[in-house]
Amino acid sequence: MKLSDCRVGLVGVGLIAGSLGLALRERAAVAEVVGYGRSVAPLERAVARGAIDRFSLDPQEALGAVDVVVLGVPLGVVRSVLVEIRAALKPDVVLTDVGSAKQCVIDDVQAVFGELPQRFVPGHPIAGTEHSGIEAAFGSLFAGRRVILTPPPMCDTAAVALVTALWERVDADVVTMPVETHDRMLAMTSHLPHLLAFGLVDMLAAAPDHNETLRYAAGGFRDFTRIASSDPVMWRDICLGNRDALKVALHAYREDLARLTALVEAGDGEGIEAVFKRAKKTRDSHLHWFER
Amino acid sequence: MKLSDCRVGLVGVGLIAGSLGLALRERAAVAEVVGYGRSVAPLERAVARGAIDRFSLDPQEALGAVDVVVLGVPLGVVRSVLVEIRAALKPDVVLTDVGSAKQCVIDDVQAVFGELPQRFVPGHPIAGTEHSGIEAAFGSLFAGRRVILTPPPMCDTAAVALVTALWERVDADVVTMPVETHDRMLAMTSHLPHLLAFGLVDMLAAAPDHNETLRYAAGGFRDFTRIASSDPVMWRDICLGNRDALKVALHAYREDLARLTALVEAGDGEGIEAVFKRAKKTRDSHLHWFER
Repeated sequence: MKLSDCRVGLVGVGLIAGSLGLALRERAAVAEVVGYGRSVAPLERAVARGAIDRFSLDPQEALGAVDVVVLGVPLGVVRSVLVEIRAALKPDVVLTDVGSAKQCVIDDVQAVFGELPQRFVPGHPIAGTEHSGIEAAFGSLFAGRRVILTPPPMCDTAAVALVTALWERVDADVVTMPVETHDRMLAMTSHLPHLLAFGLVDMLAAAPDHNETLRYAAGGFRDFTRIASSDPVMWRDICLGNRDALKVALHAYREDLARLTALVEAGDGEGIEAVFKRAKKTRDSHLHWFER
Repeated sequence: MKLSDCRVGLVGVGLIAGSLGLALRERAAVAEVVGYGRSVAPLERAVARGAIDRFSLDPQEALGAVDVVVLGVPLGVVRSVLVEIRAALKPDVVLTDVGSAKQCVIDDVQAVFGELPQRFVPGHPIAGTEHSGIEAAFGSLFAGRRVILTPPPMCDTAAVALVTALWERVDADVVTMPVETHDRMLAMTSHLPHLLAFGLVDMLAAAPDHNETLRYAAGGFRDFTRIASSDPVMWRDICLGNRDALKVALHAYREDLARLTALVEAGDGEGIEAVFKRAKKTRDSHLHWFER
């Protein structure tokens, strides 16, 4: 099936799905973008912002005729939303999602559908800001960004091709990898840093003079903690959804921090410098990836 | 003494001292800005960039006639530089510095001078980037930024006034606080975050597939680790110089992280969400300070 002939259903119209809708409609990339959700207000705003053509709170009305369904809801409600919409979907629908952890979504789909539908293509656009909701959506969010797909072994190749075409149409670079690789890498490079930033701000919040302290917070703290302004519920769900990989990353980091603490306590300047130099070298040599 | 009549000596012409020189000379704020250092190359670049009027590698020639000396060298060489320049300074010179930790500089000055000179005014501009050196200097670096002074109890009030005038002339906001307060606050809001960021990147650098992993690093990681591109030697010195306060901050953070790990391991969504919500609320309610 050609992408331009597809009707696309967005389940949820937050930052990611809303931006996808905007990007698709700006390009007239698909036949129709239909919104589905549980409350009217964000869907109405999505229509007003041009992210969807129309919407319905009724699964059949919204999703009964769509060819591609994009699940754009927080990980914690994926399962209950799937239960809601399952009966409304066409048997040959291509199902994908945008969740930041992938094994947990696969588990949810399997639990609701009994077996894994061959046209289910798990996906994760590596894009976003610390803001959320349809008001924060913008059509260029995915330009030059990577989208990781983690198709299970029996996944339909035409479905993978269609989801790839969908993301490439909004200027993303699509890559495919095993779900274990995705979950491990994202735990280390995204989920752990968010947890560390939330933890740092929380530590300061608990200090008796935190107002005074935050007032003098230097540049490092501002950068470090920007991500602590992210949506707490979304990140709670990610931490729970990718719990196993996050536990491994947390363990490794806490060991690393224990070693650093020992160096500081011992006043071991050489040891501290070696760690800092290796870190700077690593980051600087990968700067072209960070600055994209 | 009026600021406009002062000759200012910069000891070291890195990002901070170089930017101060640029800012002062752009405004014709002082009578002369003289550079002193151990190697010719950065001093020549400082002249070429307009950060200093002239320089010398000879302490007497560079600093013998200056009224205000600004120590702009890494914390680790403060003591040896003071030994070098001490004999060249006028007896009534006003001495200040820009170090990120303050008690260790006070200790160095006391050790070299025998007793603390009454015209020594410890200072710390809360400004900087992850870049360093004279090439990274720019004259508006201090605009709207805070400069913290931590004058010891016997400090000369005219000297404090002159150093205050110097920083206000380059558009900084000057505040005064006890040295213990400064060192504790900066440990939590600047030194600890830098250590955590260096540690995180170092952990990934040690992973066998770090090239692959860093390639997919999401936005959170980029923000979180920008500060890990900071100068390793400078930050080693800060960690050593502010070791006692940093140890306290590290201890508190590691306890916080242990609690967060326990919540993740227990799958305690409510507990995780409570931490994240408190952090977001704290950061959002102080956003006007961060976005300055």
